[in-house]
Amino acid sequence: MYRTDAINALRKRMEQMGVSAIIIPTNDPHFGEYTQNRYKVREWLSGFTGSAGTLVITLKSAALWTDSRYFVQAASQLQGTHIKLMRLKMEGTPTIAEWILGQYPEGEMVAIDSSLFPYSEYEGLRKELAPCTVALIEDIFDSLWEGRPQLVFNPVQYMDVQYAGESPKSKHQRVVDALGVKDERFAYIISMCDDVAWLCNIRGTDIEYNPLVQSYAIVTNTATHLFANLSSISDEVRDKLLSEGVELHPYDSFTRILGEIPAGTLRICQKSKITVRDWKALDIPGARFMDDPVLGGTVNHFKAIKNNWEKAGFEKAFLADGVAWCKVLKYIDDAIVTGGQLDEYTIGEKFAQFRGEDENYRGESFEPIVAFGPAGALPHYSATAENSQIVGKNNFLLMDTGAHYVFGTTDTTRTIPIGELTPQQRRHYTLVLKGMVRLSMAKFPKNTRGSQLDILARGPLFNDGVMYFHGTGHGIGHYLCVHEGPQSVRMEENPVTLEPGMVLSNEPAVYIEGEYGIRTENVLLVEQWKFNKMNEFYGFRTYTLVPIATSCVEWDLLDSQEAEWVKEYNRRVYETIAPLLDKETAQWLSEKYL
Amino acid sequence: MYRTDAINALRKRMEQMGVSAIIIPTNDPHFGEYTQNRYKVREWLSGFTGSAGTLVITLKSAALWTDSRYFVQAASQLQGTHIKLMRLKMEGTPTIAEWILGQYPEGEMVAIDSSLFPYSEYEGLRKELAPCTVALIEDIFDSLWEGRPQLVFNPVQYMDVQYAGESPKSKHQRVVDALGVKDERFAYIISMCDDVAWLCNIRGTDIEYNPLVQSYAIVTNTATHLFANLSSISDEVRDKLLSEGVELHPYDSFTRILGEIPAGTLRICQKSKITVRDWKALDIPGARFMDDPVLGGTVNHFKAIKNNWEKAGFEKAFLADGVAWCKVLKYIDDAIVTGGQLDEYTIGEKFAQFRGEDENYRGESFEPIVAFGPAGALPHYSATAENSQIVGKNNFLLMDTGAHYVFGTTDTTRTIPIGELTPQQRRHYTLVLKGMVRLSMAKFPKNTRGSQLDILARGPLFNDGVMYFHGTGHGIGHYLCVHEGPQSVRMEENPVTLEPGMVLSNEPAVYIEGEYGIRTENVLLVEQWKFNKMNEFYGFRTYTLVPIATSCVEWDLLDSQEAEWVKEYNRRVYETIAPLLDKETAQWLSEKYL
Repeated sequence: MYRTDAINALRKRMEQMGVSAIIIPTNDPHFGEYTQNRYKVREWLSGFTGSAGTLVITLKSAALWTDSRYFVQAASQLQGTHIKLMRLKMEGTPTIAEWILGQYPEGEMVAIDSSLFPYSEYEGLRKELAPCTVALIEDIFDSLWEGRPQLVFNPVQYMDVQYAGESPKSKHQRVVDALGVKDERFAYIISMCDDVAWLCNIRGTDIEYNPLVQSYAIVTNTATHLFANLSSISDEVRDKLLSEGVELHPYDSFTRILGEIPAGTLRICQKSKITVRDWKALDIPGARFMDDPVLGGTVNHFKAIKNNWEKAGFEKAFLADGVAWCKVLKYIDDAIVTGGQLDEYTIGEKFAQFRGEDENYRGESFEPIVAFGPAGALPHYSATAENSQIVGKNNFLLMDTGAHYVFGTTDTTRTIPIGELTPQQRRHYTLVLKGMVRLSMAKFPKNTRGSQLDILARGPLFNDGVMYFHGTGHGIGHYLCVHEGPQSVRMEENPVTLEPGMVLSNEPAVYIEGEYGIRTENVLLVEQWKFNKMNEFYGFRTYTLVPIATSCVEWDLLDSQEAEWVKEYNRRVYETIAPLLDKETAQWLSEKYL
Repeated sequence: MYRTDAINALRKRMEQMGVSAIIIPTNDPHFGEYTQNRYKVREWLSGFTGSAGTLVITLKSAALWTDSRYFVQAASQLQGTHIKLMRLKMEGTPTIAEWILGQYPEGEMVAIDSSLFPYSEYEGLRKELAPCTVALIEDIFDSLWEGRPQLVFNPVQYMDVQYAGESPKSKHQRVVDALGVKDERFAYIISMCDDVAWLCNIRGTDIEYNPLVQSYAIVTNTATHLFANLSSISDEVRDKLLSEGVELHPYDSFTRILGEIPAGTLRICQKSKITVRDWKALDIPGARFMDDPVLGGTVNHFKAIKNNWEKAGFEKAFLADGVAWCKVLKYIDDAIVTGGQLDEYTIGEKFAQFRGEDENYRGESFEPIVAFGPAGALPHYSATAENSQIVGKNNFLLMDTGAHYVFGTTDTTRTIPIGELTPQQRRHYTLVLKGMVRLSMAKFPKNTRGSQLDILARGPLFNDGVMYFHGTGHGIGHYLCVHEGPQSVRMEENPVTLEPGMVLSNEPAVYIEGEYGIRTENVLLVEQWKFNKMNEFYGFRTYTLVPIATSCVEWDLLDSQEAEWVKEYNRRVYETIAPLLDKETAQWLSEKYL
């Protein structure tokens, strides 16, 4: 809902401050994918509920920048407001700086909340906005936003080493060794909650869909310092952390303590992952910085390379998830056979229900996407209870959902045919599958980057003059965020090489606007494959155990190895999952997919 | 031949100059792939004749750095000298700076010839060599090298617009427009002889294998200034150049004139493509620089995108070359059938002979590689008259040669089986071919970089745990250098996107040390393929018209499209080339390859 009153009040406040524009991002000080409700100022002011967007309010005007996933939704939610929709990456769309400068070419004050912008972005804005100056302000919305939610700090859970596979003490030692600065005093600043969670072996429920604790950390030569809400930490968890060399500090003391670090201590942090507020606190006279620690030496990179316990955990997570998926797929099939009504939202609920039958289930890892027909072409479609389509006939049903288990996180997409399909639908379905299989089968030498492999997934579609505009693969956390860096498989260059132990999604797709969407996604583990005189070669192992619909495959479009891969995959799914299903469901799985 | 006396005399000279070390690269002031003999100081002093290497002489010691292509050759040629061989990219090999600092840790003077180092490299050396200082010196070898060759300046040829497709005047205008600095005075400095040749539509014979004129250019707002040996330019060529707005200056006046450019003029140049000498000449107080003009706005990038006349020229060049190749292939076959003796060097000569039957032939575009058996595994093997192997039995004969014609440049590799092969040889041959075909068939959206396509060529080999360590594809000049930038298809990231009109080689390979080498190389043109709602897609057209041996193909390893591509390719070669052959050769081509 759009707040005229609040925007008017904000403008009054801006005038008092001598500010002509304010930039309101979708961030909190930790720069994760999700924020707590307290930080949803952009959504509260504009009424636009998408997960990405930047609102700019000037004394004269207002505009919201968002990306192509949200053009339709944003246009509809901004209707009737005076906020102009700015479509990112479209021809003719001004940048935020251009738009502000268009109104204030002589230069005025532009305010940003110093706790919501990474330092690197602030540096960029200062250049782009000249002759305007960028004023750093604190959060001013407490007085404007009546009933604004408080920060939530739920109990902190300690992840036992039987799941984590490595103790916080050992992780601290490895990080210190990798930084290569043992002989001098340093403070390595970590703002991302998932990096903190990995480092301290803690999990929480502070943030939607992500099992995180609202927290920071500082690694020094001798200890890991955890900044979290102390009253959310039980005595038992506290004792475990202390025995692992993790020292505890109040969440709110983080910025103050940064300011108390002696000038001679080397400050290690990434400009793109630290707030302006915190950088400024560190930046006292004589302070020494190491920006961007060596690639491969960061907590972020360590976290991405799963150890044997984590790998075994992923296997168990995908096994549990495969069982739930099969139950949902049979539920859908049964409804179709009996002519019962199916709707998207209820199917999404079924996933949570069947997953919940496993005691290790800890919730969905993102908002489930269950989309019939044309809705499948909207990459971030999400049915709500009030606004859910009935699953119709002669089109695809696309389902993209994942879950957290105490031993791992899952993310799977399957597209199933309902009724009869057109030849083009069958062709597109098969080409998506072909790309998914080609990437799954890839072998490659060490030091390969994701951008080098991307065309294996896209190539079959390119050959048909078709493409998708999102990445092919993202990293996945171990009972952590479902989207995790630093590795990726994308068209864009990313210098991070794929290392054994990294986990990646593999999700080529086709979206035909107004008609249908197809996406098939498995999750892969990078493994050593072959070592010979020439090089060391790696390959992938597939974690996902959910059958792939083959009734709409055009087998002519697959070569013999690809076709064999698909059949062998469904055989493996059956053999692994069937023993965990009741007889009837196992029978159905065999009849439908073997 | 190694020169003890010269090195001793050089050391005496260094002592007089107060210099403890001198770095002698394999460069001239134009940074092309080949230099004139006058600049082969490294070769003359060390006796090492490879095309790449850096010699460093200190008062105490001497060492030569070269890459893996030349490890065997350099070890043999440096035997008996006191020059230590430094194997680049091998574990434990020090950098030049590390090696010098090992001898002079306190810091001494290290000399480099300011006309032989790009400015960017000088900047790097200064940092790496500290506390040593880098002394910029002029060429000191005239007095040491008795009988040192003079620079050669052969007659300059003007390339008619019927071949070039665009006049120097039009090129000047396009370059000025692309630089986007029309409203201010600028001087765009061009040191690479092939960039100059393209810009001025001139060709020459000053440099081995490259049809270049030893020259520089400066583009200003109103004219292109060509710096060349004026007495090598006939009245006719001079008049043509003048009428096209190209102003002539003596070659030797280049650096002096750089120094006369007014401070307020914007200097546009690339630090990696201008000598320290010339950068220093430009760098007067108050001078304004634009380093690295916009990607896509350089002469280098314009040159890479061939116009319709150039494209048609390439087609004619590959047609002429295909005829010569067929004659050589038949010559080899005849010798095998009749039991006649075949040797590598003579086969190389046959290429020049048959190519010479075309009046438009202007010479080989690089030293031909004709290598039987294990020699094929040495990527830069070259047989000489004195040192040529007899072509034996039951192995591969690898031939990599190219030529210049007035309308284009060619580069082709074919590997043919002689006698019986092992299953592994047949398998590797087929996988190389599969990679070559996959890249040839690739379709991709605009803005794709070469590193994204590279795996199409390498993938089939990776899947067998095999790889090659050179690039898959390089640009090719239009009656210019056979290796040309800025595009490439390599594993390494290169931000240059593939644009319609770019010409690229496609040359996957397998090298089994001590056993055999296989390489199959075609030349491709990037073309527009499809334009639809989703994007603009590109694909390749194959220029090369030389039959591919199929008797050693394991057809099972190719999918049906790939197999069809190979058969269709040989059919096209036959249909295009046969009419230009005598009856007997045409008959042979049909029997052997259809």
